[in-house]
Amino acid sequence: MRISELSERSGIAVATIKYYLREGLLPAGERTSPNQASYGEDHLRRLRLIRAMIEVGGLPVATVGEVLAAVDSPELSMFKLLGVVQGSLSAPASAAPETEWDRAYATVRAEMDRRGWDMKPSRPAIETLTSVLVRLAQLGYADWGTTALPSFFDGARTIAENDVATALAAGGREDIIDAVVVLTVLGDTAVAAIRRIAQAQVSLELLAGNRPE
Amino acid sequence: MRISELSERSGIAVATIKYYLREGLLPAGERTSPNQASYGEDHLRRLRLIRAMIEVGGLPVATVGEVLAAVDSPELSMFKLLGVVQGSLSAPASAAPETEWDRAYATVRAEMDRRGWDMKPSRPAIETLTSVLVRLAQLGYADWGTTALPSFFDGARTIAENDVATALAAGGREDIIDAVVVLTVLGDTAVAAIRRIAQAQVSLELLAGNRPE
Repeated sequence: MRISELSERSGIAVATIKYYLREGLLPAGERTSPNQASYGEDHLRRLRLIRAMIEVGGLPVATVGEVLAAVDSPELSMFKLLGVVQGSLSAPASAAPETEWDRAYATVRAEMDRRGWDMKPSRPAIETLTSVLVRLAQLGYADWGTTALPSFFDGARTIAENDVATALAAGGREDIIDAVVVLTVLGDTAVAAIRRIAQAQVSLELLAGNRPE
Repeated sequence: MRISELSERSGIAVATIKYYLREGLLPAGERTSPNQASYGEDHLRRLRLIRAMIEVGGLPVATVGEVLAAVDSPELSMFKLLGVVQGSLSAPASAAPETEWDRAYATVRAEMDRRGWDMKPSRPAIETLTSVLVRLAQLGYADWGTTALPSFFDGARTIAENDVATALAAGGREDIIDAVVVLTVLGDTAVAAIRRIAQAQVSLELLAGNRPE
């Protein structure tokens, strides 16, 4: 199909599509004349993925580019991909005083050790979690790492087990990679939304004094 | 303290502090002369909260302003506050075809009904979750709403129960409001980070063929 049809079917302006082509987010179409190229269903799907990561996942265009470059890399291992997707977390490590950082990191590490999580995960997620604990301590919630963190680990583990099972059930290598990217990024937004719905529900149950099981 | 000291202690540039003052995110200091004002510990704390929401929570300045305006409103109820914080979710509702939207919404509602969650939560979180399901269906993951959503609800509920308990334990009304804002926004980032750590751990356990319980 021509770029005008690609625009129509995806609902994305031609100028935006050209921008994604220039930035390398979208592979070039097949040249059919010096001024024209032809695009296929793969392009349409890729466009939907880009928009989902930007609009629903809230990722900046540069990060989307990094994730897609990893996806397109032929020698990518599953574990490396997880690392790249981990990098899609938005929070930058804050410049915290060393003692505050060390104390927060020790709390994270202790919770992982307690569970026998002996793997060395790629660092962005651990740094992000540590920086959250540093901020919370600065805001007066120094206890959060011991009172709330275990529940957060329990809840996140429940979700992550489903994530991995869903990705593995996707089929071949390409499908698994696709599933990891789509489900991790969009899943973050889903978790945040469901958490708010659940907060409202739990509050209501407490107010009403009845807690259906 | 003067604005220069406020800048030094918070690590935030004077120009940025003035910007927050103009935008109403930070209350004015007490005038000590036509050109000078004095700031207190409350200002320092408020600055930390603003930076945490922007840097760790990834909220745009306008949204931070809305959340803080709600916090400062004297007649705010807890339930209204939850609604405002829910609005801090970044994903906009997508312009999906009506049938796709209805199908996704029915899936969300069915999961809530199955759990007896009969409350009407403020709409942003439900709309956000519905829009995630619409996107996933467009990307070929139409089953996710039945295969994965229950686990996401389980995990999010575990976390939300802790959220509400932590907020209620915070003490008086002002403290509870503070806790809801801080813990919900920063907690989103924590959940996303822990989910990635847990994904890596679960993958590793599957690869190793041993699953410690």
